Amino acid sequence: MADKIAIYPGSFDPITYGHIDIIKRAAVLFDEVIVAVARNLNKAPLFTVEERMQMIRHSIADLTHIRVDSFEGLLVEYAAANEASAVIRGLRAVSDFEYELQMALVNRKLDEQLITVFLMPHERYSYLNSSIVVELSRLGGEIDCFVPKHVKDQLLKKLRRV
Amino acid sequence: MADKIAIYPGSFDPITYGHIDIIKRAAVLFDEVIVAVARNLNKAPLFTVEERMQMIRHSIADLTHIRVDSFEGLLVEYAAANEASAVIRGLRAVSDFEYELQMALVNRKLDEQLITVFLMPHERYSYLNSSIVVELSRLGGEIDCFVPKHVKDQLLKKLRRV
Amino acid sequence: MADKIAIYPGSFDPITYGHIDIIKRAAVLFDEVIVAVARNLNKAPLFTVEERMQMIRHSIADLTHIRVDSFEGLLVEYAAANEASAVIRGLRAVSDFEYELQMALVNRKLDEQLITVFLMPHERYSYLNSSIVVELSRLGGEIDCFVPKHVKDQLLKKLRRV
Amino acid sequence: MADKIAIYPGSFDPITYGHIDIIKRAAVLFDEVIVAVARNLNKAPLFTVEERMQMIRHSIADLTHIRVDSFEGLLVEYAAANEASAVIRGLRAVSDFEYELQMALVNRKLDEQLITVFLMPHERYSYLNSSIVVELSRLGGEIDCFVPKHVKDQLLKKLRRV
Amino acid sequence: MADKIAIYPGSFDPITYGHIDIIKRAAVLFDEVIVAVARNLNKAPLFTVEERMQMIRHSIADLTHIRVDSFEGLLVEYAAANEASAVIRGLRAVSDFEYELQMALVNRKLDEQLITVFLMPHERYSYLNSSIVVELSRLGGEIDCFVPKHVKDQLLKKLRRV
Amino acid sequence: MADKIAIYPGSFDPITYGHIDIIKRAAVLFDEVIVAVARNLNKAPLFTVEERMQMIRHSIADLTHIRVDSFEGLLVEYAAANEASAVIRGLRAVSDFEYELQMALVNRKLDEQLITVFLMPHERYSYLNSSIVVELSRLGGEIDCFVPKHVKDQLLKKLRRV
Repeated sequence: MADKIAIYPGSFDPITYGHIDIIKRAAVLFDEVIVAVARNLNKAPLFTVEERMQMIRHSIADLTHIRVDSFEGLLVEYAAANEASAVIRGLRAVSDFEYELQMALVNRKLDEQLITVFLMPHERYSYLNSSIVVELSRLGGEIDCFVPKHVKDQLLKKLRRV
Repeated sequence: MADKIAIYPGSFDPITYGHIDIIKRAAVLFDEVIVAVARNLNKAPLFTVEERMQMIRHSIADLTHIRVDSFEGLLVEYAAANEASAVIRGLRAVSDFEYELQMALVNRKLDEQLITVFLMPHERYSYLNSSIVVELSRLGGEIDCFVPKHVKDQLLKKLRRV
Repeated sequence: MADKIAIYPGSFDPITYGHIDIIKRAAVLFDEVIVAVARNLNKAPLFTVEERMQMIRHSIADLTHIRVDSFEGLLVEYAAANEASAVIRGLRAVSDFEYELQMALVNRKLDEQLITVFLMPHERYSYLNSSIVVELSRLGGEIDCFVPKHVKDQLLKKLRRV
Repeated sequence: MADKIAIYPGSFDPITYGHIDIIKRAAVLFDEVIVAVARNLNKAPLFTVEERMQMIRHSIADLTHIRVDSFEGLLVEYAAANEASAVIRGLRAVSDFEYELQMALVNRKLDEQLITVFLMPHERYSYLNSSIVVELSRLGGEIDCFVPKHVKDQLLKKLRRV
Repeated sequence: MADKIAIYPGSFDPITYGHIDIIKRAAVLFDEVIVAVARNLNKAPLFTVEERMQMIRHSIADLTHIRVDSFEGLLVEYAAANEASAVIRGLRAVSDFEYELQMALVNRKLDEQLITVFLMPHERYSYLNSSIVVELSRLGGEIDCFVPKHVKDQLLKKLRRV
Repeated sequence: MADKIAIYPGSFDPITYGHIDIIKRAAVLFDEVIVAVARNLNKAPLFTVEERMQMIRHSIADLTHIRVDSFEGLLVEYAAANEASAVIRGLRAVSDFEYELQMALVNRKLDEQLITVFLMPHERYSYLNSSIVVELSRLGGEIDCFVPKHVKDQLLKKLRRV
């Protein structure tokens, strides 16, 4: 059979242990996983796309069959160009669920072949997202249980500069 | 890489177009999909396990790499015995979502390796389940858009007998 | 224009101030409202269909253009037989919402013409339902703010007998 | 009986098939439906109020008893000035539901007579909204199944200019 | 000030680490906590009230200012008889939330003075409940991370007998 | 036992009857309640911290054991500095619920000792929040049932100036 490729798109601003947990699980299911940083998000990111890609690469250094990339434009076109059969999304809470369902339905309308696969992060990370980590860090909170050390360091450096 | 096997467990009492939609999508993602009828559900089923397995087989006759089976006891043990790396679950509504998250968390506690994969049925089937089909059929409603013809026939035959 | 007829189906076991609030609002919107007690519910009711209809009639004695009836079988067929263009449903909570959406979608599949209209009871009755009233009454709780006096009397009489 | 007038307020930036589906259903229930573009929304709209009204008029050209208008200030006052007895709102998802319930309760506090009527769009449009259509169009996605051709043309023209 | 007494009612059939986590937190907030096993639940319990009380006592042996009791009838009357100012409830998921809100509103109607206090169990127990533990145990699953050893032993003994 | 101190943090921009209802209930449960206006919220407030504190003080003038304060930085650090054992949060709707659960989990991660206590406002205020009151007031709506007279006066004065 042809290799099964999955794309895990997101802003990863920055990557957290919740994202890493999803990537590890996706890596078991698929022959190749492309972690794809979205370039065209409306909200102003804290980190540049390149900084975000570098932090992802560092975080998954011990995993194989993972590629880190970025994309702009329609996800379905990026997926087709990469011959991906699936899009990976993490599902944590009900509010996630409705937004994700909406996006999955829209993507299915745009490309009937592309399958959205929802994975559930460990309950340890069930209410974790990047904005909370940034906000906590800004207020001087301890974030060691939410992100790897190198992300924490980058975050502290970035926030001092801002 | 080793073959990727996924289990799609359920009561399938009877199978609907919603289930079939999920099976077709799972078949794209995995090398083999085992559709597994749960024998140990508490509620009294309408169809016997064998009738349910036969209707599933008939419904997916044109698909390859699908096996239809039944199981009792813990899903995680059945999955391990079949060397499955994933459990497939359909996600339709918020009420589904919470129950499914709970089951996924419990299964993760019992077997850290087993990954629950959520797929979304076509929005055409977004609020469809077996009980509604049975209830509609009982009241004389038209169910052609919810189940294949052979399932409808079996259902009408069964309901006349009950 | 032809008269606009709406059906408000339910088990009304027994009718509460929440139901009455919905009926009053429906009566403003439609030329005729049929409050229709469902005969074919699976769960064993506390009151007979006739007792429930009598309590509804008593509760809405001061309203005009309301008819109290009962039905069995498919709601869409009962609606068609009564030339109703709408089905009224009360919406209180998220759990209601998903079930009601499901029923509305199924009814729309069965009869594209029939429109489900959701009304919201007064927030005073936002978490009120018949089962809670019965349970409270059984435990000796005060239910004057949930049902009219005549319903309370019937309920106490019925519970003593049970 | 006096004519039953309903108002369907919104930003309609731009109108989608989901909105049109709701308007058609409202037109069956009421003697007159006023589609009312809200002028005082905080967020910067893509289309002017006049452009939005023109697209709505074009979309419903084959329907009678529909009036297209705009308003600013309190919805309850606009409704009273137009002798409307109902406000129409579309309900798609749980997240909609809570916001809509809140607005309905607030409007009920401001005018006890005004009734909020919730209608459910076809499940084909269950996760559709204007922002998604605009975003898809911006990214070059195909939007023919979400909006009429004339809206798509206007949208493409507008986005080229922006 | 007078002692602050809180009641933590439930079926505790059997007590889990989720319940114990809530009891420990309640014990910090109140001068006395009464863990009250409800006698009048409709569903047939697995354990007798006395067995459930004994397992609770064993589980909280190292805590002070906790009383274990049982009650039947209205919670608000039991609370008044014990001069409790608060009822403790654990909140895990959205489905919990709506039911709990409903009960809190009803109890507030019955006794305006009684305050329902919601506490959140550790996310480790966020999707845990007694039925799942019993079901898992029945199927031969490992339940050491959900209940204390003595509860597990009682459960295995009980299930062998059933 | 040591005094039980609870903190009720928020933006209170401005205080509503919903907040006051929560404060009154918290005052029954705890020996001291600190109503703490958050200084570091990202969104631009309508009222200054001092104006908000003054309106809170005016609203609770008849209550004892309540302190009004402001804070910036991490809530858990402010709580520790004030020897508070609990954080009070109002719970109204499902959308609240998920956000609040997330914040409670994060705070628990930062300080295992701090307990988040959820209280439910009267259903009369179940869908009330400060933004709606401000928006209504801006549009000329009647807000007497949502805020005390002195808050309404301040709000009208402020909105005229803006």
